[in-house]
Amino acid sequence: MTQLDINADLGESYGAFQVGEDEQLMKVITSANVACGFHAGDYNVIADTIERAKSEGVAVGAHPGFPDLFGFGRREFNMSTKEIYNLITYQLGAIAGVCKVKNVELQNVKPHGALYNMAAKDYEMASSIAKAVRDFDSSLILYGLSNSELVRAGQDMGLKVAQEAFADRAYTSEGYLAPRSMEGSVISSLEEIEKQVLSIVQNGCTTSLDGKQIPLEAQTICFHGDGDSAYHHAEHIKSVLEHHNVSVQKVGGS
Amino acid sequence: MTQLDINADLGESYGAFQVGEDEQLMKVITSANVACGFHAGDYNVIADTIERAKSEGVAVGAHPGFPDLFGFGRREFNMSTKEIYNLITYQLGAIAGVCKVKNVELQNVKPHGALYNMAAKDYEMASSIAKAVRDFDSSLILYGLSNSELVRAGQDMGLKVAQEAFADRAYTSEGYLAPRSMEGSVISSLEEIEKQVLSIVQNGCTTSLDGKQIPLEAQTICFHGDGDSAYHHAEHIKSVLEHHNVSVQKVGGS
Amino acid sequence: MTQLDINADLGESYGAFQVGEDEQLMKVITSANVACGFHAGDYNVIADTIERAKSEGVAVGAHPGFPDLFGFGRREFNMSTKEIYNLITYQLGAIAGVCKVKNVELQNVKPHGALYNMAAKDYEMASSIAKAVRDFDSSLILYGLSNSELVRAGQDMGLKVAQEAFADRAYTSEGYLAPRSMEGSVISSLEEIEKQVLSIVQNGCTTSLDGKQIPLEAQTICFHGDGDSAYHHAEHIKSVLEHHNVSVQKVGGS
Amino acid sequence: MTQLDINADLGESYGAFQVGEDEQLMKVITSANVACGFHAGDYNVIADTIERAKSEGVAVGAHPGFPDLFGFGRREFNMSTKEIYNLITYQLGAIAGVCKVKNVELQNVKPHGALYNMAAKDYEMASSIAKAVRDFDSSLILYGLSNSELVRAGQDMGLKVAQEAFADRAYTSEGYLAPRSMEGSVISSLEEIEKQVLSIVQNGCTTSLDGKQIPLEAQTICFHGDGDSAYHHAEHIKSVLEHHNVSVQKVGGS
Repeated sequence: MTQLDINADLGESYGAFQVGEDEQLMKVITSANVACGFHAGDYNVIADTIERAKSEGVAVGAHPGFPDLFGFGRREFNMSTKEIYNLITYQLGAIAGVCKVKNVELQNVKPHGALYNMAAKDYEMASSIAKAVRDFDSSLILYGLSNSELVRAGQDMGLKVAQEAFADRAYTSEGYLAPRSMEGSVISSLEEIEKQVLSIVQNGCTTSLDGKQIPLEAQTICFHGDGDSAYHHAEHIKSVLEHHNVSVQKVGGS
Repeated sequence: MTQLDINADLGESYGAFQVGEDEQLMKVITSANVACGFHAGDYNVIADTIERAKSEGVAVGAHPGFPDLFGFGRREFNMSTKEIYNLITYQLGAIAGVCKVKNVELQNVKPHGALYNMAAKDYEMASSIAKAVRDFDSSLILYGLSNSELVRAGQDMGLKVAQEAFADRAYTSEGYLAPRSMEGSVISSLEEIEKQVLSIVQNGCTTSLDGKQIPLEAQTICFHGDGDSAYHHAEHIKSVLEHHNVSVQKVGGS
Repeated sequence: MTQLDINADLGESYGAFQVGEDEQLMKVITSANVACGFHAGDYNVIADTIERAKSEGVAVGAHPGFPDLFGFGRREFNMSTKEIYNLITYQLGAIAGVCKVKNVELQNVKPHGALYNMAAKDYEMASSIAKAVRDFDSSLILYGLSNSELVRAGQDMGLKVAQEAFADRAYTSEGYLAPRSMEGSVISSLEEIEKQVLSIVQNGCTTSLDGKQIPLEAQTICFHGDGDSAYHHAEHIKSVLEHHNVSVQKVGGS
Repeated sequence: MTQLDINADLGESYGAFQVGEDEQLMKVITSANVACGFHAGDYNVIADTIERAKSEGVAVGAHPGFPDLFGFGRREFNMSTKEIYNLITYQLGAIAGVCKVKNVELQNVKPHGALYNMAAKDYEMASSIAKAVRDFDSSLILYGLSNSELVRAGQDMGLKVAQEAFADRAYTSEGYLAPRSMEGSVISSLEEIEKQVLSIVQNGCTTSLDGKQIPLEAQTICFHGDGDSAYHHAEHIKSVLEHHNVSVQKVGGS
């Protein structure tokens, strides 16, 4: 691998509720997925986050989620494909609207939380998401879990897709993210994070929580914006990648 | 006057809370201002409302409001001009996004409730709204209360503006809408409604609640979508207008 | 059977969103389950509804639901038993607080929507609800679907329980309410409603959607407050019951 | 002065949005005002906060606010006295309900944010709050800004009242809290905080932002739970008070 995008999910504050370490993370990542106001974020946070991304030279992505502020978009909802389509187009429009008045290009779309994880396994839901993205703007890049149904649906819909791996999350043997409720699902050791990233970059695979080797192709790698030490982890991994001659840059070109 | 637009504020249901008589009103109006999900409306209601407008040949407008579902956007909020700008761009983007995937052109923007009434009197707030509209899409037509600061701000910002009069709402002697809390503020008599509309169309004025004659230039006239008999009123007035050789058509041209 | 309670779920308006025909229903029912502000209702609606029940001589029940205004409490949420317990105690406290300042006795508790239907099948969830009711006020009567796990859990917890049947909802052959998405799940024919109620009262059973006879013991019978003609149905059934010498009165005694 | 209560506003997290340093503050304060779910807090946070207060021996108060999660209860709402009454009774009931199932006594009521500040100046609003408290439970102690209309209204309503001073907030020359938007309104220097507290305790006055001496009688003193260093400040002031022979204990007696 010669290049890799580092992304984080940002803009997840809401009114007086301040979360994340966006200011710092913006200094190291290449793509920022901005919460769209449904699971987190609000119209002020979104505007400020996109302005900051612009001034730091970071690419902007939409990070749509379930309409669930209380559950932070991490609870599963059963929705018809039509509702999923409506859910995505509204949020894409909102983010794209703010990008437009700020003269910022929208680069990518990455579903959030339960929406992301359900779409990783459910081709029909994934297709609704991909269809909404395509109908809204077919030049947008869809971020999906590496080897997932979302990646497949995006490709089938003719979208440019970026396969995503997680630096600080453990995987199940089926290649899904281990649920947060599972012990060991969040990797906090920087050494382990480095090991996982290098294994993905150099060998195209990692080791699951239960010890199985799983394939992981990745064009982008995620650090969690709501984590305590995401910035320090991302900064370290960025220098490790560059030391290994992997150019850290946004997916959408130079 | 030779032509007039008839508009109504629609798409104000929310989840299981069904309000308004949208289906009927769509058959008589020429422009539909669609609630954007802040004071009312949700992503499903918005999609369905825009689809219905399209199939009925009704022009679509954005109807952004304060973020106040509980108060239905009728309570006043003190917001900085920056926050007003963010509030409008988010909602415009969302509605425009849904219009885009439905292949529908967005015609106009009409602020809702307290936002509309505050902007009628406050030039600075009105300018923030107009600036957001211009920055988002300078071809959008801004609807504002006839002779108000919102009309003035829109014109100063270089926007095309449609002056709006209300068929079923009484005016104060200053030319503002009489507050809903005031006796007689909502006109329910069809005879009175007809009288007010014809006075506006033929004489460019109406009589305020306290008996003063006030000037009212109007390119568009509003019926309230949440009223019980808006459809019957609008249907009657439409035929009265046509009888008086006033062509009822959308502001944005044929 | 010599006596029966007629209940309805009321107070389900929210801010400017007016739903239900509470005013009329209050004139015919004997118990009113008042929405607690989570799936519907707000602090003003709750206060007004309890005042109206008091003046009409209708008993007041709490009608707690999932925290889901957008889904009207009809969507399923996976919650731990601890969260269910917290969910119920908060809502019971709120309703009981309003009852206290209005000098009204709280008679019963009836979970709403998906919470009711899930608890009908899931003994563990039902036990959490029953435990919260008992800990809050062990004299409260728990309303549960006839023959359901909620009835069983309430009895096991030592609560007084009222088995509930539905006048205008069809049943599955397992004795659950047929989902609203199923054709024929809502009974709109008054003749069919009368037939179902009399069958329950006289024979202790009804016929499921797929034609099977199912046992249905009932101390209370529900009409839907959000239905269009609940009042007319309830009024008719009340007179039918009295004609058959069934006294219509609240469960909590005279 | 021989005794003083130290209070803080806690339980202000919401779902995944974690704010405040409750765990630490609970170790030093004597009374905890618990957010009731309107401006902040949720049914899980409330239950956990009351349990923690119980285990730490800290008295529990209700901290009702405007229904404004997005604005954190800091925005002013115009409400009728009837609506204020409904607002308070609902929230009191909810908190008292959780206290009841946890076997915890509810000690006091302290309005939050804009509700607190408006009631400090508006006797009519203050009376509605006091009336709701009295009707709900006349043994509750009302916390109000020292020398404010809320204190006066509480006394007029026959309630036991605790006058409150702020350790880390500056005052205007009229004796109100300086608005957060004003430079110097939040006191971050521990030396200044100590000076203000000792001046209140020993001289019954402090110095306003513009240098005027203002009288301040206080039975309770507040540290802000959402501040960064509230714990360290409170811990220091507690030892200072004890050094000056002021017993730090809850208002409601031992």
